[in-house]
Amino acid sequence: MNNFRFYNPCEIYFGKEQEKNAGKLCAKYGHKVLMVYGKNSIKKNGVYDTVISSFKEENIEFIELNGVKPNPEMDLVYKGIEICKNENIDFVLAVGGGSVIDCAKAIATGALYDGDAWDFYLRKRKPEKALPVGTILTVVGAGSEMSNSNVITKGNLKRDFDNEIIIPKFSILNPELTYTVSPFQTACGSFDAISHLLERYFTPTESTDVTDRMIEGLVQTLMIYTPLAMKHPDCYEYRAQIMWAATLAQNGLMNTGRDGDWACHKIEHELSGEFDIAHGLGLAMIYPSWLIYVAKENMPRFRQFGRRILGVDVMEEDDKTIECIVDAFVDFEKKIGLDYNISSLEMDDEKCKELAIRTCWNSDTKGKFRKLTSDDIYRILKNAKTFE
Amino acid sequence: MNNFRFYNPCEIYFGKEQEKNAGKLCAKYGHKVLMVYGKNSIKKNGVYDTVISSFKEENIEFIELNGVKPNPEMDLVYKGIEICKNENIDFVLAVGGGSVIDCAKAIATGALYDGDAWDFYLRKRKPEKALPVGTILTVVGAGSEMSNSNVITKGNLKRDFDNEIIIPKFSILNPELTYTVSPFQTACGSFDAISHLLERYFTPTESTDVTDRMIEGLVQTLMIYTPLAMKHPDCYEYRAQIMWAATLAQNGLMNTGRDGDWACHKIEHELSGEFDIAHGLGLAMIYPSWLIYVAKENMPRFRQFGRRILGVDVMEEDDKTIECIVDAFVDFEKKIGLDYNISSLEMDDEKCKELAIRTCWNSDTKGKFRKLTSDDIYRILKNAKTFE
Repeated sequence: MNNFRFYNPCEIYFGKEQEKNAGKLCAKYGHKVLMVYGKNSIKKNGVYDTVISSFKEENIEFIELNGVKPNPEMDLVYKGIEICKNENIDFVLAVGGGSVIDCAKAIATGALYDGDAWDFYLRKRKPEKALPVGTILTVVGAGSEMSNSNVITKGNLKRDFDNEIIIPKFSILNPELTYTVSPFQTACGSFDAISHLLERYFTPTESTDVTDRMIEGLVQTLMIYTPLAMKHPDCYEYRAQIMWAATLAQNGLMNTGRDGDWACHKIEHELSGEFDIAHGLGLAMIYPSWLIYVAKENMPRFRQFGRRILGVDVMEEDDKTIECIVDAFVDFEKKIGLDYNISSLEMDDEKCKELAIRTCWNSDTKGKFRKLTSDDIYRILKNAKTFE
Repeated sequence: MNNFRFYNPCEIYFGKEQEKNAGKLCAKYGHKVLMVYGKNSIKKNGVYDTVISSFKEENIEFIELNGVKPNPEMDLVYKGIEICKNENIDFVLAVGGGSVIDCAKAIATGALYDGDAWDFYLRKRKPEKALPVGTILTVVGAGSEMSNSNVITKGNLKRDFDNEIIIPKFSILNPELTYTVSPFQTACGSFDAISHLLERYFTPTESTDVTDRMIEGLVQTLMIYTPLAMKHPDCYEYRAQIMWAATLAQNGLMNTGRDGDWACHKIEHELSGEFDIAHGLGLAMIYPSWLIYVAKENMPRFRQFGRRILGVDVMEEDDKTIECIVDAFVDFEKKIGLDYNISSLEMDDEKCKELAIRTCWNSDTKGKFRKLTSDDIYRILKNAKTFE
């Protein structure tokens, strides 16, 4: 186990009607709020009205910034930063899913920085302060509601940074607010959360059993309740299991004492930066190919993944075992309708090469379970193209 | 799943040599520290010297309060409170196990209260503020290093309170500092941690699978690594698994979305308040009898406990199933040497009755999985007396 520091002061309000507390919670930090959201869905399901009423009760002034799209773009972040600076905003409230929250985090850091906020994503500067951020979660998966990370797209570049200062002060998690999320988006969100867990599960660190076992429990929860929630979208309890599991997947706890891998995420960022597909879908396209490519780095761990998470406990030789385990994983992808072939993106050989090289934009290799060169990544994308 | 709020801002520094940071961490909160510890063991293993050096580097003044014993007593708490008040202490650092940390928390709340600090334990008053507390953990089990709770003894009364204001600001967890903990104390500590998890596992709340699975992972971790650490006391990795699992058992996360039971803890407090035995041992004496008494409240949950945690997956009828599962649990107690019979305490029938009544000192029943009257508790103690 590695030495580690763990600190996550985000206050979670989980359950029915918790969004009524929004105004009271914001008022602990400020009285002029930038409220960031996506489309008008929050007006349809009543969250918008609830939040606005709660603002009024606390005499909170607010300005709205809407129109955040999946794979949120830097242009909107710049717009938000300008509002914050001109209007003396003192709190940023995100109402939405990971894209909205990431956008809010980007705005909150940029608002207290004099240069170009894209510097943070290009690793030119490290952010030192941020406006406080709060969230009301309406789409599950990214885990941004309790995490120190955010991802923003500029042109075809999708870039991220991690920093403790962007951990939300509070997050409101009401499973009811996710009833209207479509089956496909539900699947994509859960797959994203599962991948957050697997990125950590496939670690080069030894002696990590205590976190291994928690990760296994969370992945199993997501694998069991995601198809159920897709079938019964307004079942509170199914949505609740998924919501809390996805938040815990990304709050830092599942990373304690170990290095994560994160190659698949980095590859996928290039994929969805280029093709503007759902992040969870992109991950589902890449994962089986990646699993096959890296399994032999640590067969005991790979067998543990098969045995403890997927229930595939075979005594076959390595190649056959890998096949059985990856088959079971793909079966799950099929079950939630994410067994798309990457070739549906009309990605030719040149594009595979280009994305592989772009993945390694700031280092020679990506991933820690197995360190992948751009040539390895090219092969993974190539194999993903033909994978069935 | 119940609505819940989760908030735990304790900063964890886990791993080798982390105690060197003690001075720097204390200095964030104050410059006059009360350092609370137990016996001289922290002088033998070098922690004492390391901490004192780190204080000097930060120009921290300190006063020592030592002599904390297992089942820490109010008398010493009063002494600590007096020192804090007279010497203008602004930070309390606990170096030790749960007893030392609980004592430090009690001092920290009492120091900012004008009345008798025992009021908090008798539910006469709710503490509203406390000096900041930090910890360096040297005995694993109680989980006080990241919890909102503490337990203090006055006479033969062992009482507790929970409050967010006593969550430590930071806790330093170095598994190396636990190498010298004896096999018996290691077993008692782990059993305490396991019981913290089982108190939550046996819940009346429905649809709690996500936390169920994390609890299962932590209990399994403790059941696997405790006998190994008893056999190889200076194995870093075994100690590390236990240390982190026991901390997570009690930091509030395993309680999210559910009610816990806590009857066994309440009964045990009366037992160790009376007989001054190790808390973990007292729990091990009570648990099998309690399990048998309450199992039928929810047989699917009891079967899940057997199947997922103990690997006992039988299709027998209820009584036989309960017997198989409790047998497997007692086998684990035997493996770690905690299969003492409660009759070794020379507890007669009258004493069973007295402790049962005393357990229900502030309410008619205890426990939530099954609500137990003092008559039920009498029977559990009586059965525990004869249990083999």
